[in-house]
Amino acid sequence: MKTPSKVYFIRHGIAENRADHVPDEKRQLTKEGIQKTRKVANRLHHLNIHFDLILTSPLLRAMQTADILQTAGLGHQIKESTSLVPNGDINNWLNWYQQWRQNGGHCLALVGHQPDQGNWAEILVWGEAKEGLLLKKAGVIGLVIPETGDPVGNSSLFWLTSPKLLL
Amino acid sequence: MKTPSKVYFIRHGIAENRADHVPDEKRQLTKEGIQKTRKVANRLHHLNIHFDLILTSPLLRAMQTADILQTAGLGHQIKESTSLVPNGDINNWLNWYQQWRQNGGHCLALVGHQPDQGNWAEILVWGEAKEGLLLKKAGVIGLVIPETGDPVGNSSLFWLTSPKLLL
Repeated sequence: MKTPSKVYFIRHGIAENRADHVPDEKRQLTKEGIQKTRKVANRLHHLNIHFDLILTSPLLRAMQTADILQTAGLGHQIKESTSLVPNGDINNWLNWYQQWRQNGGHCLALVGHQPDQGNWAEILVWGEAKEGLLLKKAGVIGLVIPETGDPVGNSSLFWLTSPKLLL
Repeated sequence: MKTPSKVYFIRHGIAENRADHVPDEKRQLTKEGIQKTRKVANRLHHLNIHFDLILTSPLLRAMQTADILQTAGLGHQIKESTSLVPNGDINNWLNWYQQWRQNGGHCLALVGHQPDQGNWAEILVWGEAKEGLLLKKAGVIGLVIPETGDPVGNSSLFWLTSPKLLL
């Protein structure tokens, strides 16, 4: 039996604070952010999770998070997507995703930002976003996507965890 | 600062199959069910979770699960509630819950059955149930309940995990 398609939302780790001299897209993970994200990544690897693709927001703190996932052995390939920037367009991503699945893609990591990631997960499961999911930095949301038809409103949530509850 | 009220839904562990000679309410946890539920309970204890009350469905497999939670040090008090039987009435429970909170109750475990537990969690967070939450046996759902006002449609999901992803 074919295992169902899965999408994992992984929020970027703890990043340096906003400051006038650092543009938002250049904010880096802190030391603590790197350490905690590494621990989460190693835990996911220990759980035998493997991503066909790590799709990431191009903002530095997300890219660094994606790198940590790759280094932990969770996936070979990283790709940037402007759909995953803060306030990104879920419909753009959905178009890409349906194509990617048709080409054989199966297990996908999305590295990005809040509240978008929680909102997208809600849209996929319930059809609309009500900000009911609490996703901490370096936290994980796991969805099962139906094999056929529209993922919107038809997906299921099988996992939501903070680093604290995972480690 | 007062920490917010929390409700944890904990589904009963793996139980013996339905059989003609055993009424549904007398089905027991299997050996594997007991072992896995104990591991989950110990993990919750390790995470410093403590319930002011373990409210359980009176069906045997739920009562046995509640006993395991108590034995692991997760809470001193167990109480049966007919609201938590399969197809139980969430409004009955809500009336009880508001009273319990007024009397100082803060962190509550609900031990029961699917699909009710996932449905109730969805009603508390999103106002309606669409069976979008996958809750395995001995799995856990964690909700934050707002301090004031109606919990229905105003709570937040901070945790959903299967035993496999927790252990």
